Amino acid sequence: MGDFLKSPSVDGVVISPLKIITDERGSVLHMLKSTESLFDKFGEVYFSEILSGAVKAWKKNKKLSQNLTVPVGMINLAIYDDRRNSRTRGNLFDCLLGRPDHYYLIHIPPLLWYGFQGLGNTPSLVANCTNLSHDPSESEKMHPESEFIPYNWAS
Amino acid sequence: MGDFLKSPSVDGVVISPLKIITDERGSVLHMLKSTESLFDKFGEVYFSEILSGAVKAWKKNKKLSQNLTVPVGMINLAIYDDRRNSRTRGNLFDCLLGRPDHYYLIHIPPLLWYGFQGLGNTPSLVANCTNLSHDPSESEKMHPESEFIPYNWAS
Repeated sequence: MGDFLKSPSVDGVVISPLKIITDERGSVLHMLKSTESLFDKFGEVYFSEILSGAVKAWKKNKKLSQNLTVPVGMINLAIYDDRRNSRTRGNLFDCLLGRPDHYYLIHIPPLLWYGFQGLGNTPSLVANCTNLSHDPSESEKMHPESEFIPYNWAS
Repeated sequence: MGDFLKSPSVDGVVISPLKIITDERGSVLHMLKSTESLFDKFGEVYFSEILSGAVKAWKKNKKLSQNLTVPVGMINLAIYDDRRNSRTRGNLFDCLLGRPDHYYLIHIPPLLWYGFQGLGNTPSLVANCTNLSHDPSESEKMHPESEFIPYNWAS
């Protein structure tokens, strides 16, 4: 994966390369199949646009796991592990995700802090396929510049 | 839905308005939840890009049903009913699908012919959440200009 991984890994985060089937009318891009070992159960699929330079961070889900990919544009994704009994506690995982060279599926288990920033000159689209339907009461939020997480978003 | 429906309906096709939650960093766009009545079971979620003016047509699935939306750009979607015992046999359903004013989920049951054309000046992204994993042997294809289907794609 070359320079894809810029940081130490976080236990439970899984990176899967995704297939792009090139076509002169427009490519077909895989995301997730029920037959894949990574698949747990289907809760919801939705999208989050992110404007160039904008940051959506930090968020942590108590029970929900996520499968993220970026079929349009490019983001910087950061994941922070403060799980009490994790062998990777204190680690920060930081990667590029998007087109054309970083088209991966990132699986994020519950209890990890995560956030992302839009890169490039145009809006990017993050697709998320979760194992539970969205429930605001099961997530926590923290300010993107919080000192609790040792990470600085690009300004 | 105003001028959204341009043609007679096709039995089994369902159009559901989808929520867009506006945010100055980029909007959140709903697609499909397991708790919705439309949801059957999860097979696969994938994307199909379509360049401006390009046509992807015609295709018919024997068993698979689809849930399509367009989170980026705009397409013209056409669906043709040649099912032997359908009360809408011979009908052609034709609609705009995409941003910002036509953000809907279109449910297409099996045995209908469908195709789409990219509109606007930039590539559009079609997201598809199916109830079965893709199996090439269960779909049929027909040339976009086939005289079997009474439809002319814009040139």
